[in-house]
Amino acid sequence: TGISDNQTNLANLVSAIISDVEARGDSALLEYAARLDNRKASTLKELTLEPKDFRAALQRIATEDRRALESAAERIRAYHMHQKPDAWSYQDALGNSLGQRVTPLKRVGFCIPGGQASYPSSVLMTVIPAVLAGVEERVMVSPLTQDYNHDMVLAAAAVAGLDLAYCVGGAHAVAALACGTQSIARVDKIVGPGGLYVSEAKRQVFGRVGIDMIAGPSEVLIISDGHAEASTLALDLMAQAEHDSSSQALLLSPDERHLDRVEQALAELLFDLPRKNLIRQSLENRGGLILCRSLVEAADLANRLAPEHLELALAEPAQLLPRIDNAGAIFLGASPEVMGDYNAGPSHCLPTQGTARFASPLGVYDFVKRSSVIALSDRGLRQLAAPAARLARREGLEAHARSAEARLIRSES
Amino acid sequence: TGISDNQTNLANLVSAIISDVEARGDSALLEYAARLDNRKASTLKELTLEPKDFRAALQRIATEDRRALESAAERIRAYHMHQKPDAWSYQDALGNSLGQRVTPLKRVGFCIPGGQASYPSSVLMTVIPAVLAGVEERVMVSPLTQDYNHDMVLAAAAVAGLDLAYCVGGAHAVAALACGTQSIARVDKIVGPGGLYVSEAKRQVFGRVGIDMIAGPSEVLIISDGHAEASTLALDLMAQAEHDSSSQALLLSPDERHLDRVEQALAELLFDLPRKNLIRQSLENRGGLILCRSLVEAADLANRLAPEHLELALAEPAQLLPRIDNAGAIFLGASPEVMGDYNAGPSHCLPTQGTARFASPLGVYDFVKRSSVIALSDRGLRQLAAPAARLARREGLEAHARSAEARLIRSES
Repeated sequence: TGISDNQTNLANLVSAIISDVEARGDSALLEYAARLDNRKASTLKELTLEPKDFRAALQRIATEDRRALESAAERIRAYHMHQKPDAWSYQDALGNSLGQRVTPLKRVGFCIPGGQASYPSSVLMTVIPAVLAGVEERVMVSPLTQDYNHDMVLAAAAVAGLDLAYCVGGAHAVAALACGTQSIARVDKIVGPGGLYVSEAKRQVFGRVGIDMIAGPSEVLIISDGHAEASTLALDLMAQAEHDSSSQALLLSPDERHLDRVEQALAELLFDLPRKNLIRQSLENRGGLILCRSLVEAADLANRLAPEHLELALAEPAQLLPRIDNAGAIFLGASPEVMGDYNAGPSHCLPTQGTARFASPLGVYDFVKRSSVIALSDRGLRQLAAPAARLARREGLEAHARSAEARLIRSES
Repeated sequence: TGISDNQTNLANLVSAIISDVEARGDSALLEYAARLDNRKASTLKELTLEPKDFRAALQRIATEDRRALESAAERIRAYHMHQKPDAWSYQDALGNSLGQRVTPLKRVGFCIPGGQASYPSSVLMTVIPAVLAGVEERVMVSPLTQDYNHDMVLAAAAVAGLDLAYCVGGAHAVAALACGTQSIARVDKIVGPGGLYVSEAKRQVFGRVGIDMIAGPSEVLIISDGHAEASTLALDLMAQAEHDSSSQALLLSPDERHLDRVEQALAELLFDLPRKNLIRQSLENRGGLILCRSLVEAADLANRLAPEHLELALAEPAQLLPRIDNAGAIFLGASPEVMGDYNAGPSHCLPTQGTARFASPLGVYDFVKRSSVIALSDRGLRQLAAPAARLARREGLEAHARSAEARLIRSES
């Protein structure tokens, strides 16, 4: 089919870019930056920004913008502080000491879109959890140019605590982070949103480096009992729909008249929105106002869809909450999804396309890794050697068995 | 190159198998089972095993084998109980309630090798954490035949708490779990080790379902100060080397004579091991006895390699431990890696090939997912609406801004 041909072409193209950057490093990266990001430079240094550049941008933006970034960052920090996994250990009855260490990743790369759309909020949402995790080096790639929106991105980098930025984007930037070049140190993990090239490149380098997730179109599912203002819910649906034409905005309610009111409100509120064509298109493509028999049926459907965002626009949201198994972020009562995008505190990097069945919001836990720690006592070695050797021999692994039994001899002597 | 041609062929073959199983379900699966697993059956029911079958196998095996499985399971359970992430929530100064729920995945598939090698220990290591996480349905795929080793696998399934097993393996089994068929319910995540086909299939279905990791050849790195018996360390190295010819076994020490003694012990102990040819081969391919200037230098090298298993065979292992950043599992003093394979308690499913830089042992945390929960107070809505709207407009998202501002109007009224 045409779609899978396109996917194969994209995969081949991205694979060629990665091989090229891996083989030729900086010079390949500079060529792709000139060709694909329209950024001509003779050295990578020209495309490199540092904390002083971020601070300068923070000075340039309007005071109200700076305050909005700083207060959002503070709330994001307060929320994510709760997410750091703790190390632990215990002694068992044999005197063995067993536990798990938690250590930060050393170097993380952040992909931030920087073309027509630029999202300072994504800088806050991705970099702040990494700082809290203790990641030593935080490096952004983004095809930034010089305009006010990009100043907002750089200002967000200052507020979040970024260490370095390279003004390149796309698959070549992902390749440089994953493989390293003469100028760019290889990272341990690559996170952050991106278009088709960035997503495919992340998929291909997964394994050499960690990645967060492959983000798909954004989604909201609203379950409403009909008590909320129809116009408010209509705006929540349209906020989702304005992302792009494949965004999904669904409203489920057992109240038919309420659905009618929301439909009317959509029609009324659409006319003066700058992205009205896009909104109309995505509502037609993937939107829906759905009559359900009960709130419980709505919750069951939500679990099947596992939406990125779930609004429980209910008088008593806490009653339905225990029935919800699968959702990236759950907004109770009047809480709107858009505050989750900016300044409620939780991450806006959430699992999409049904992956909330198994995946979690981006968090501090994504920037640490665990190591098991095993210190067996003499008594432990003595007791565990024989059964370990027995199981090893059942698996045909004689050297394993003898390695275990060597401890038996040792602890007897 | 030849290697990348082979990879492309494998990828194409696996992709075709997945599409076929997705399109034709059970009948495709039965065809592949007959062709690739040598298991002829006319319905999937003939290839399905249930808890009563697992219990029957547990009765059939030797009492000592049963005891070894049960005591290992108990220790694995005791260790993994510490890993479950807790839900949490807090109220901020504005009266907003923010938190994170933790819910188990509903259905998980376990790939367990079942050809020439069969690993009952892998059943314990993968299924027990899922049970502790609260996963409702735990389904194994494994190309099992009827022999004693496979009775051990089924007995381990009884001990671990498996719900169902399908006697099919390879890419077609992964496809059935990921896509679902008429008889097999789609799972949310697929975990467990596998050969080339299983690994490539897991890579391809990643995104539709969760996967754990793509496991590579097994590795041990031993840092020795020379106080341990050379013969014991030689056995530890050979235990690693007997897995397959690409396994890696390294010993680092600042004590040259100690390295000589280990080399001699390797030569002496090799001769009567059943897998001596394999061991010799993998030691020649990827093994090494490496003289280093100091233990600190050895620790730095370990961090660069990020080994799956790290043994600190030191008189004072706790002194070097804080310098270790990257390792899947760390064994202190006389604790041997092989007890970690069976009955120390921690998982033997560990990150390989340097991925311990960013990845963790398989654990209870891999069988749950988190959801953010956001309940904003009237005061919270009022305070957060304006800055959220401001940031939304900077990102060109007017409907987002109005959705936030709708709360301002609401909470004023």
